[in-house]
Amino acid sequence: MASNGFRPLDEKSLVEYIKATPSLSSKLGNNLEGLQIKEVGDGNLNFVFIVIGPSGSVVIKQALPYIRCIGESWPMTKERAYFEASTLKEHGHLCPDHVPEVYHFDRTMCLIGMRYIEPPHIILRKGLIAGIEYPFLAEHISEYMARTLFYTSLLYRSTTEHKRAVAEYCGNVELCRLTEQVVFSDPYKVSQYNHWTSPYLDSDAEAVRTDNILKLEVAGLKSMFCERAQALVHGDLHTGSVMVTHDSTQVIDPEFGFYGPMGFDVGAFLGNLILAYFAQDGHADQGNDRKVYKEWILKTIVETWNLFHKKFIVLWDEHRDGSGEAYLPDIYNNPELQLLVKQKYMKDLFHDTLGFGAAKMIRRIVGVAHVEDFEAITDAAKRADCERQALSFAKMLLKERRKFEAITDVISSIQHLHS
Amino acid sequence: MASNGFRPLDEKSLVEYIKATPSLSSKLGNNLEGLQIKEVGDGNLNFVFIVIGPSGSVVIKQALPYIRCIGESWPMTKERAYFEASTLKEHGHLCPDHVPEVYHFDRTMCLIGMRYIEPPHIILRKGLIAGIEYPFLAEHISEYMARTLFYTSLLYRSTTEHKRAVAEYCGNVELCRLTEQVVFSDPYKVSQYNHWTSPYLDSDAEAVRTDNILKLEVAGLKSMFCERAQALVHGDLHTGSVMVTHDSTQVIDPEFGFYGPMGFDVGAFLGNLILAYFAQDGHADQGNDRKVYKEWILKTIVETWNLFHKKFIVLWDEHRDGSGEAYLPDIYNNPELQLLVKQKYMKDLFHDTLGFGAAKMIRRIVGVAHVEDFEAITDAAKRADCERQALSFAKMLLKERRKFEAITDVISSIQHLHS
Ligand SMILES: Nc1ncnc2c1ncn2[C@@H]1O[C@H](COP(=O)(O)OP(=O)(O)O)[C@@H](O)[C@H]1O
Ligand SMILES: Nc1ncnc2c1ncn2[C@@H]1O[C@H](COP(=O)(O)OP(=O)(O)O)[C@@H](O)[C@H]1O
Ligand SMILES: [Mg+2]
Ligand SMILES: [Mg+2]
Ligand SMILES: [Mg+2]
Ligand SMILES: [Mg+2]
Ligand SMILES: [Mg+2]
Repeated sequence: MASNGFRPLDEKSLVEYIKATPSLSSKLGNNLEGLQIKEVGDGNLNFVFIVIGPSGSVVIKQALPYIRCIGESWPMTKERAYFEASTLKEHGHLCPDHVPEVYHFDRTMCLIGMRYIEPPHIILRKGLIAGIEYPFLAEHISEYMARTLFYTSLLYRSTTEHKRAVAEYCGNVELCRLTEQVVFSDPYKVSQYNHWTSPYLDSDAEAVRTDNILKLEVAGLKSMFCERAQALVHGDLHTGSVMVTHDSTQVIDPEFGFYGPMGFDVGAFLGNLILAYFAQDGHADQGNDRKVYKEWILKTIVETWNLFHKKFIVLWDEHRDGSGEAYLPDIYNNPELQLLVKQKYMKDLFHDTLGFGAAKMIRRIVGVAHVEDFEAITDAAKRADCERQALSFAKMLLKERRKFEAITDVISSIQHLHS
Repeated sequence: MASNGFRPLDEKSLVEYIKATPSLSSKLGNNLEGLQIKEVGDGNLNFVFIVIGPSGSVVIKQALPYIRCIGESWPMTKERAYFEASTLKEHGHLCPDHVPEVYHFDRTMCLIGMRYIEPPHIILRKGLIAGIEYPFLAEHISEYMARTLFYTSLLYRSTTEHKRAVAEYCGNVELCRLTEQVVFSDPYKVSQYNHWTSPYLDSDAEAVRTDNILKLEVAGLKSMFCERAQALVHGDLHTGSVMVTHDSTQVIDPEFGFYGPMGFDVGAFLGNLILAYFAQDGHADQGNDRKVYKEWILKTIVETWNLFHKKFIVLWDEHRDGSGEAYLPDIYNNPELQLLVKQKYMKDLFHDTLGFGAAKMIRRIVGVAHVEDFEAITDAAKRADCERQALSFAKMLLKERRKFEAITDVISSIQHLHS
């Protein structure tokens, strides 16, 4: 498999690699005695090694030239590691509190060395399944989204900087194509990779494939995904790309990073919270009916959007006379107009968010990659009930998104589904 | 001025250059005796030499590192010649009947050798001022726009090809920035470069600068221009970039070429026809009241859009099962849905066209670069009347464009202005 100096590492060869790499061994206090190395990649694509030594720790992520959860039959450029490292650095610079530091990047080896996000951090999705409340989640993730999206958009950047960065990230086309396929295409056609809770959802899956209005709307979202370079998006901001404790929130895994529509990130996050909501009935038991937790999820959805909105506008106001070239202060020169342009911008972004969020929900129910929120519900009939509710809400949201004016309207609509 | 091998040529040094360049001298039949060389650049940016010898002819266009009509005080990358040559070749490949052949390109010298578009070809704008009808104009220009825009969009291209090309043309950022400034910004603020028929239009120009709704709408168009890579657009498709005879139509000067919204090209052309229409009253005299000619312009506007629409849809149908990745045939798999997506696509494109067309009209009346259509009206009061009508129509069109359903509605609205 070796080619041009690339070789996949295992627990053993990784030690040699670290020894030979000062930027990594220094993070381990140059003390490499009795390193504990564990491969923990529970993700879909890559290999992740946790390396713990007596005097420090580090995480090593390596991309192989295929999709891990499918195997070598689905090749995928390992160059994605370059775009992951670039996005981690860029987003980390903009929002260091919520992005792990990159210690080392090796383009040949497609290998990133980064901060070990230590226990008790767990993947947010697992926390949501366990029914754990995260009181700072909305605050933190809205901060991450507002800062990374605002500062990489034309609200902050000159078009010169913007076009240079857009060109660079055009190189991540293979990962974009993966999204195009698994989010915007496969769920709407017969595909060998699709699956769902069969036979319960057979007719629901078919209904997705034969819904003309749904497919019309998905086409518009796909075009926006392919054509609109609005900001450097994470590109895979589901609840499996966030690690949390009670008071810490860390965003990992931006290997799909590229210049795309902001709503793709905000929608991914909110859409996955909505999935978590609809999965709760499947996790309810005698000890915990999850009613209170469901309310917490809905509250978190509202707060995430509202805080994102607020923080984004604060950044915009702060930099109104700055370098951004979308709204020149000499033109957008009175409070009434400034309000108008912000309202229009945020309204469009809200509708994009709902559309992309809904598309991300649908693909997790009838597409190739499902979410543990539902997969962990062992009773298939029960799982199918939860999934069907989520699917039918998502279809409605995708088609009717322009009718929603505020995030609270979305919540009302969720609550009315089974009141 | 020489730097890295670049030197501006004049009539004399050009002969030496041609002698040393086989791809050019061969076009002159290798017969360089008594060459006639004339610099004819009536354009705003570059130097254009017509070279005629006893056995052939060629046009040489050279970009200098500033904007010709302003002078060295407004620097502008001479690299624009590279993007002009690239776009000429790409568009020429897609539509050879309406784009001059490129014989030679010298990146160091920022110099393009191309087919001499011989007399009786004249610049379309001059023909419109002279009141000449071009019976094939709508047919030809709609063919050019449909083919160049369709084939460089995701309706024909894979996202792999698309992203590669988008990245390449991100390099033409300086020319994009010029458009951002002179089309989307300067007319809406006080700028040293703006001018208008003063004092007649003083309050009209001010009204543009204080119209909140207009500025809100212009912001949306500017964002689309900066962010949306829909197709390889010409980028400067006004009636001064088209050379015509009774039965030939040739599109020149795509130095602003980049991946942008299709409506920017279609709108530029239609907007400039509308300007030509509003200028006619200023060219009317006892011998010719221009009434019939005005009807011909309106008819040409209608036919251009309708033929463009028709040809674009024909191409789409032809390549429905082809390489384009926007609408996969397995998803968009029934006639009703295929109709729906086309209607939506063309409706959006129509509204973009009206918006960009209107913006291009406005900037020609109160911005830096005016059009000969109006400038040739020597009576300032009369000129101001024509311009005011055009301006007020354009403002309405920009703000109300989404209310128009067909191009004939636009024409009715023009006709009602002074009926
Ligand atoms: N910096 C880190 N610190 C701790 N654990 C991590 C870190 N990065 C990844 N992980 C663990 O590895 C898993 C897979 O990582 P991820 O970046 O999501 O890979 P993939 O691209 O394959 O989805 C995560 O779910 C998490 O459990
Ligand atoms: N290929 C050509 N054949 C004949 N005349 C041409 C040709 N290209 C340009 N010209 C003449 O030169 C003028 C300026 O050319 P253009 O490409 O529009 O330059 P600019 O970029 O400066 O606007 C045109 O208006 C036209 O009269
Ligand atoms: Mg992951
Ligand atoms: Mg990943
Ligand atoms: Mg020109
Ligand atoms: Mg010109
Ligand atoms: Mg030009």
